[in-house]
Amino acid sequence: MSGTNLKKLAEELGLSISSVSKALRDSYEIGSETKKRVLAMAEKMNYQPNPFARGLRKRKSITIAVVIPEIANNFFALAIDGIQVIAQQKGYHVLTYLTQEDFKNEESTVKHLQGGRVDGVLISLCGNTTSIKHLTDLNQSGVPVVYFDRVPDMLEFPTVTTDDYECGLKATEHLILAGCKKIACLCVAGFLSTTQKRRLGYEAALVKHNIPFDPKLVIQCSNENTANRALIKKLLSKKGRPDGIFASVEKLAISTYYVCNDIKLNIPKQVKVVSFSNLRTASLLSPSLTTIAQPAFEIGKASAELLFRMIEKKNLGNRIEKIVLQSSLIQRKSSAAQ
Amino acid sequence: MSGTNLKKLAEELGLSISSVSKALRDSYEIGSETKKRVLAMAEKMNYQPNPFARGLRKRKSITIAVVIPEIANNFFALAIDGIQVIAQQKGYHVLTYLTQEDFKNEESTVKHLQGGRVDGVLISLCGNTTSIKHLTDLNQSGVPVVYFDRVPDMLEFPTVTTDDYECGLKATEHLILAGCKKIACLCVAGFLSTTQKRRLGYEAALVKHNIPFDPKLVIQCSNENTANRALIKKLLSKKGRPDGIFASVEKLAISTYYVCNDIKLNIPKQVKVVSFSNLRTASLLSPSLTTIAQPAFEIGKASAELLFRMIEKKNLGNRIEKIVLQSSLIQRKSSAAQ
Repeated sequence: MSGTNLKKLAEELGLSISSVSKALRDSYEIGSETKKRVLAMAEKMNYQPNPFARGLRKRKSITIAVVIPEIANNFFALAIDGIQVIAQQKGYHVLTYLTQEDFKNEESTVKHLQGGRVDGVLISLCGNTTSIKHLTDLNQSGVPVVYFDRVPDMLEFPTVTTDDYECGLKATEHLILAGCKKIACLCVAGFLSTTQKRRLGYEAALVKHNIPFDPKLVIQCSNENTANRALIKKLLSKKGRPDGIFASVEKLAISTYYVCNDIKLNIPKQVKVVSFSNLRTASLLSPSLTTIAQPAFEIGKASAELLFRMIEKKNLGNRIEKIVLQSSLIQRKSSAAQ
Repeated sequence: MSGTNLKKLAEELGLSISSVSKALRDSYEIGSETKKRVLAMAEKMNYQPNPFARGLRKRKSITIAVVIPEIANNFFALAIDGIQVIAQQKGYHVLTYLTQEDFKNEESTVKHLQGGRVDGVLISLCGNTTSIKHLTDLNQSGVPVVYFDRVPDMLEFPTVTTDDYECGLKATEHLILAGCKKIACLCVAGFLSTTQKRRLGYEAALVKHNIPFDPKLVIQCSNENTANRALIKKLLSKKGRPDGIFASVEKLAISTYYVCNDIKLNIPKQVKVVSFSNLRTASLLSPSLTTIAQPAFEIGKASAELLFRMIEKKNLGNRIEKIVLQSSLIQRKSSAAQ
């Protein structure tokens, strides 16, 4: 067994098991002289290279990385809380990296993590991630990776997501049942699976209720709040404006509120609003905001659990897991029927 | 010159300049045998330690690190935007680390950065940072570091902050002028300079207006929203409750709103609220929240500018800069006089 070997090695060297283990995984806490001595002895005592290499890979850094795109977003705050709970149980440290919705940042962060600095990686993609070469490279480097919420759609990536399509449908249907006849869908431009699925759910609800689909009511927004407000203002100022807004992300709901304040449009009397959101202040807004709330904490936990199963090579075989958790509609005043 | 030396060293060793440079900065890409050989030769050839260290530090990674304590906080989102603007001008990459208000995370992140992975570090401290040993270690490792917003108070650290004391005074005085007679100050427990100064400003405003200071009205909150709500509920439920709340951080204002909703206390009629905050939804809340808004974007810019002056050793001499930017009071309905 590798444990016995480590003990024997430590005895022979007159070092603690922990120091030997740290030296073998090239920890900064151990001097280079000691590392050399440990490696030489490991070789001399024929410390089995294979389990040793595996051991090295196994608990090299006792750290996992979390890569998230956005900071001022309560979904990610809660997801990280969930990740921390599991990491703490496992005695792992969590390093969190922000990509700031910037694909170049995402690429270089992923490259940085390829070097084997961490034992596993949890990633949620940027809005403008257009190529997945960096992701396949990371996969091939052998570091276990789990994607959560904003995930690449290819089969080869393990993912933890929420039921975006069903919730897009549920949110839109909720607006229809509250009396809306003309519902706009606010999307973030790009290739994000979440956005695509939420929009498809929106379309499905229209079909289900025999409302013709009008592509002009699907508004492609950006990461620029000012530009988004201008787009939404234009949409809500024209004749025959929509009487319902389905915001696929939280910041577009906030922009809608600002626009309605600005042009004195009453929510929910003149326009009803539903948004995907884990906003802390959703129920404190004027009016309180009806949300599709994602189980962010649980998504974090499930992602970390899956990652640790991959790190520990438990019960997975060659399966690539795709876990889907349910979100829920929380009805508040912004979508109240009159 | 240091360039010549590195070249000579590389020639003597029969290695590429890049390999020698990597070995000298202890890169994981270079084996420990080679590193030893390079270090020995550097010593033998009397490779000047000082310019060597400086050269190494200069454009080693073309990356700066930003270490922040909290994710769901718009102050940090804006500050990072400001940092990015300057970093982009300089052609630097920004790696952002989250410590999640956890001192242990902060310690290990700082240790991780000591290895010379980045050319400079911007840090905002955790709420429960009690020791500064890791910060003095980082300073001594030679990596340029600038602290922003939540900073250690010692003279040796360059800092960029806002006028916390003056704004604590301004916020409290604003409540007094709006008619409040009994003002509570909601603080986050711990040693953060920001909290301490905001509280001292609160006390100064009371003194200025001849209102006796009651230590029972200074509420030490935590990072636990549930516990904070219980504390605030107790405070606002008892007889002779405060008629004004000065929240030194945003999340305590949000908790106050939830409590007031819960126990049906009208803001601003029965209790007025002012908070330090860069909340995106401040003006959308019911009622809209009067805030002390920090110039978060400018703080980020100024911090990054100072850091790059340190990295480039421009116009600094032995000075340690302490930059203070002004925050402003944005009056909204939560503190309206009746």
